[in-house]
Amino acid sequence: MSARRTWAIAIHGGAGVIRRDILDPAQDSAYRGALRRAIDAGIAILTAEGSALDAVVASVRVLEDDSLFNAGRGAVFTSEGRVELDASIMDGASLGAGAVAGVTTVRNPISLARRVMTHSPHVMLIGSGAERFAAEQGLEQVDPSWFFSVRRWRSLETYLRASKLPIPPRPAALDGSDPIEQLVHDEGKKGTVGAVARDVHGNLAAATSTGGITGKRWGRVGDSAIIGAGTYASNAACAVSATGDGEVFIRAAAAREIASLVEHRGMSIQEAADIVIHQRIAALKGEGGVIVVGRDGSGAWSFNSDGMYRARATSEGGVEVALYKDED
Amino acid sequence: MSARRTWAIAIHGGAGVIRRDILDPAQDSAYRGALRRAIDAGIAILTAEGSALDAVVASVRVLEDDSLFNAGRGAVFTSEGRVELDASIMDGASLGAGAVAGVTTVRNPISLARRVMTHSPHVMLIGSGAERFAAEQGLEQVDPSWFFSVRRWRSLETYLRASKLPIPPRPAALDGSDPIEQLVHDEGKKGTVGAVARDVHGNLAAATSTGGITGKRWGRVGDSAIIGAGTYASNAACAVSATGDGEVFIRAAAAREIASLVEHRGMSIQEAADIVIHQRIAALKGEGGVIVVGRDGSGAWSFNSDGMYRARATSEGGVEVALYKDED
Repeated sequence: MSARRTWAIAIHGGAGVIRRDILDPAQDSAYRGALRRAIDAGIAILTAEGSALDAVVASVRVLEDDSLFNAGRGAVFTSEGRVELDASIMDGASLGAGAVAGVTTVRNPISLARRVMTHSPHVMLIGSGAERFAAEQGLEQVDPSWFFSVRRWRSLETYLRASKLPIPPRPAALDGSDPIEQLVHDEGKKGTVGAVARDVHGNLAAATSTGGITGKRWGRVGDSAIIGAGTYASNAACAVSATGDGEVFIRAAAAREIASLVEHRGMSIQEAADIVIHQRIAALKGEGGVIVVGRDGSGAWSFNSDGMYRARATSEGGVEVALYKDED
Repeated sequence: MSARRTWAIAIHGGAGVIRRDILDPAQDSAYRGALRRAIDAGIAILTAEGSALDAVVASVRVLEDDSLFNAGRGAVFTSEGRVELDASIMDGASLGAGAVAGVTTVRNPISLARRVMTHSPHVMLIGSGAERFAAEQGLEQVDPSWFFSVRRWRSLETYLRASKLPIPPRPAALDGSDPIEQLVHDEGKKGTVGAVARDVHGNLAAATSTGGITGKRWGRVGDSAIIGAGTYASNAACAVSATGDGEVFIRAAAAREIASLVEHRGMSIQEAADIVIHQRIAALKGEGGVIVVGRDGSGAWSFNSDGMYRARATSEGGVEVALYKDED
């Protein structure tokens, strides 16, 4: 097969406390199934010679719509009992980028980030301004309760009680039953979803989306909305999406730093990812992981947490889905 | 003089259309005087063996309080006729960082960014959440009209008319006279203020603050609020503050990229700054500039616009203040 027909994709559904002794068999299988559905959405586009951008958006939208993950539907709650979503996307061919933060009514924040990139003169929009742009662009908007889930509300209550912070009134939307509640595994503070891809045309793209961290306050924004921190793509180097302690990933400019080590030091993407995760992020006492796809269609991931929900596939081989550390 | 007693500082007040044939003598002298007052505030701290962090905050606060510059008082208006301020700061010793975006009532956004770094578990706060944090921290808050100026309102009207966008009602606060109106020079879309410093202890810091761009919409955030784009500092490399087309500086991860070229390629700060401005930023059709201070106490600036309001000083020499391209 010629190099020109080569494609590759990797996705993640967050890093954190993801261990065999914690997830029960039903949870294990629910997460594997969800990751498989998400990566299949991207693969379908790549095998049809579609763009890396379309592929990462397709995969991330599946993860955003799945309450198992902390992004879109199923996102964690802020201290005020709200859901505030962050997302960003980058096109490695043009270095075009789009990002949104503090979004509360847009069903798929990754699609809004893409519209910011393609239909506005700006790169980053926040809060109610971003919502207005979404409305002007005709993106699907939902009642904030669309994102709410019982399991995440319980996590908020636990967090606020431990932090001796007041617990806001429980939203009425949570009074009904939640059929998948028992399947959701609270991976701690590091939930995020993301995808990176290389298409048959040789272009790279990266996308990341999150609800942030349970109990976040004061309009906190993490690395998922920051180009260079949680998301970066350049055809000159690689495409990166991160998950983990967002503050540390911002301070390390983690995604861009992986691309810089590849570009300026000639490292492999695996070497670069390992150095950033196991040296830079670890030195700042941070935990998390990254997925990377290189310009040659190679794929890599690296994490220093107990586990990371992840999957990868290339035109040369099958689909690999993994949750735990010992699966590499 | 021993290397340990060496300090250095550089500041900027924005890049853009800053030319001898445009600024009249009164404007020229007003801007030089303002830059001198701002750098003197930082120098006073550095000569007293204070920290680089204190120095960059002191200089930026002077610039924020001066209506001549597009940051704090004198900031440009959004399309809605509001003022929304962005700022960020980074400590090269710890890689600690703080950032705020979309702030409307905090007199000195750079001081709020510093509080985010030192008094919150987060790195970036936005909008009304950031305002609540400011109130809890007891930072000085002002009526939004504190930031308004007649000159910036005229620029907004001109922009909106040219863009065929509706002009919002003129705020009542602008009805009085504005004694310095004739001195303010509209440098185009690239107004920002910033400072970088190295203290006698060998620590680096960078700080950036802005009102963004005239007529910005939908809660737009530029590079001044983004760690790695408009602001970066690492004792391992250098401290950087940028001004210019914010979207392009974000896509290039400009500030971090300068630090990466110094750290990974062993370039001088001047070489690294020139490559990022004259190659990376220019390739993306961006315009703007950066100020840089190196770990050895060297200083550099680079810009591809007509001019940049700037000043620098070191423990070894005098103070240099410059506006135009031909002053280097």
